[in-house]
Amino acid sequence: MIAPLSPVRIAVDCMGGDHGPAVTLPACRGFLERHPDAELLLVGTEAALASARGTPRCRIVVASEVVTMDDPVEVALRRKRDSSMRVAIAQLKAAPDGTVAADACVSAGNTGALMAVARYLLKTLDGIDRPAIATVMPNRRDGFTTVLDLGANVDCTADHLLQFAVLGSALVAAVDGKEDPSVGLLNIGEEAIKGSDTIKRAGELLRAAADGGHLNFHGNVEGNDIFSGTTDIVVCDGFVGNVALKTAEGLAAMLTDFIRQEFTRTGYAKLAALVALPVLRHFKSRVDPRRYNGAALLGLRGLVFKSHGSADAFAFEQALTRAYDAARNRLLERVHDRILETLQALPDAAPGAAVSTA
Amino acid sequence: MIAPLSPVRIAVDCMGGDHGPAVTLPACRGFLERHPDAELLLVGTEAALASARGTPRCRIVVASEVVTMDDPVEVALRRKRDSSMRVAIAQLKAAPDGTVAADACVSAGNTGALMAVARYLLKTLDGIDRPAIATVMPNRRDGFTTVLDLGANVDCTADHLLQFAVLGSALVAAVDGKEDPSVGLLNIGEEAIKGSDTIKRAGELLRAAADGGHLNFHGNVEGNDIFSGTTDIVVCDGFVGNVALKTAEGLAAMLTDFIRQEFTRTGYAKLAALVALPVLRHFKSRVDPRRYNGAALLGLRGLVFKSHGSADAFAFEQALTRAYDAARNRLLERVHDRILETLQALPDAAPGAAVSTA
Repeated sequence: MIAPLSPVRIAVDCMGGDHGPAVTLPACRGFLERHPDAELLLVGTEAALASARGTPRCRIVVASEVVTMDDPVEVALRRKRDSSMRVAIAQLKAAPDGTVAADACVSAGNTGALMAVARYLLKTLDGIDRPAIATVMPNRRDGFTTVLDLGANVDCTADHLLQFAVLGSALVAAVDGKEDPSVGLLNIGEEAIKGSDTIKRAGELLRAAADGGHLNFHGNVEGNDIFSGTTDIVVCDGFVGNVALKTAEGLAAMLTDFIRQEFTRTGYAKLAALVALPVLRHFKSRVDPRRYNGAALLGLRGLVFKSHGSADAFAFEQALTRAYDAARNRLLERVHDRILETLQALPDAAPGAAVSTA
Repeated sequence: MIAPLSPVRIAVDCMGGDHGPAVTLPACRGFLERHPDAELLLVGTEAALASARGTPRCRIVVASEVVTMDDPVEVALRRKRDSSMRVAIAQLKAAPDGTVAADACVSAGNTGALMAVARYLLKTLDGIDRPAIATVMPNRRDGFTTVLDLGANVDCTADHLLQFAVLGSALVAAVDGKEDPSVGLLNIGEEAIKGSDTIKRAGELLRAAADGGHLNFHGNVEGNDIFSGTTDIVVCDGFVGNVALKTAEGLAAMLTDFIRQEFTRTGYAKLAALVALPVLRHFKSRVDPRRYNGAALLGLRGLVFKSHGSADAFAFEQALTRAYDAARNRLLERVHDRILETLQALPDAAPGAAVSTA
């Protein structure tokens, strides 16, 4: 007989994002329906959550303040100490007896504030200097490529890039069930001699980790490899990752616009649009960014997931699901184990050394 | 009475690219037909150019060697001294009396070799430390955004980014006829406090140049702004530019693939494809990368344009046309004048100073 799994508890910042409870509460209801072993801690103001009171498998946690989408980091960190974002993250902090109120946390609030508050409350794991933001992008193999970092860190060292590779590997192993995911180092050519000194040194560290059997390092990849699905994970510094992500978003938006324009330009085009509608709909759903909403903040002593601020209920539910999968598959322990394994095994880069060379 | 314009002479590396003369010669014929005031110097081996002998407004310049697409830079630079690429670029060098054999040069050969040979033979302009590669990408305003640098330079300083802004402004003014094109600095947020120290310092230099009336600096832009057409020019270091370009290429290729798959997936989809064909064709031509083939190598004492290696005759002719437009509109003199104006006027960055802080 298999013992029933203990429930996965997720703390939800119900006030975050462009739409707040109007989106987060319906998403929570949908999520609970589809995840019978999940429990939610709904964090927000008393008034906003009144309608959610009494929902089965939900507990209301009242927070009196809200971090707005354009609050500076300092306001979120120092002034709004009872914000829904902060209280939600605080549910991940271990009590003196080691127990936690929640296994993961999801917020659609502003990224800078979320990262700062999460880092302040939770601290980074041993061997990790800086948390990273990881997201997935669809690829030609009908799978997803995990890309990190996406903007949390500019000016990364080679050690940071190695840490990102370890964090990303643990994430993909936990959430996508690939035990030995491949890692590519984003560069401007496939040859090992390409790129800046930092990139070349990162390549050496990654190769050393791969030689030790701790990482599945493919080698250098280029921007187009994100969408080819050449590797499961693409590692880059936050500046480059952010530019790549936003460039892709910008191009996708432009092409969507152009397709819409073309299919409404003439009477014939409008007719063709009617005929092609089912095909176009299927295409659209295949690349629908809502399907893979939910970026992971990795390297912290707690699982924090960031939903897109403009997410609708469908998209926000995907972020909840990603957080659920990560918690269910023990992402935190996996990250912890992988860091020890990989970083300690490196000849001149024990976790301590990796930190000190930053 | 208006005096007839003197002909524009373009040196063509007929051997470069994946297809060599099979593509370059038909492209040259098409180009000559559409540009009655142009003359071409066809550079290549005797045998390859035999069929072009006697073509009006063409002169054959024999070169005995060919730089292949995967020749290392060193081979192109030191060993193949009579390559078509090198001989074509050499046509831009001024004779002792100041005359030049050609006003611009076009090659589809490998980028690293082309940049190295061009830099070695032509040298950079005063005030420019490093040449940059600039290309255009289509934007939502049905125009083009010029992006530079695209891979010639990793690890740029703030001064380099300023120089790229000046080079890009001169290019857009000459080729697109916009006298005061706007410049955006590629960053991970619009606020001036975002980004690395290099980017922040570059922002200061660009603002100073704008305050002096020498540059139309818009401020920071993000990856998606390339396709929104927020500014005429987007400036970034070569690593970031290369990643952005290849990410965009990869996404475009994936989406094209997905559309093709969707329109062939079922019998109905194939029927819908037939109906939608004229619309899809118009869409495709609108984003056809062949239409804007031809990247400019800027900052050299000569106009060198790089065609995509896989260009067909239509695409290669576009590169010839871009080179023609640049030469006809005196891009070289414009670059020279703008550099003097902009860099000398900066409080603590006369051309000499800009160079020395590199």
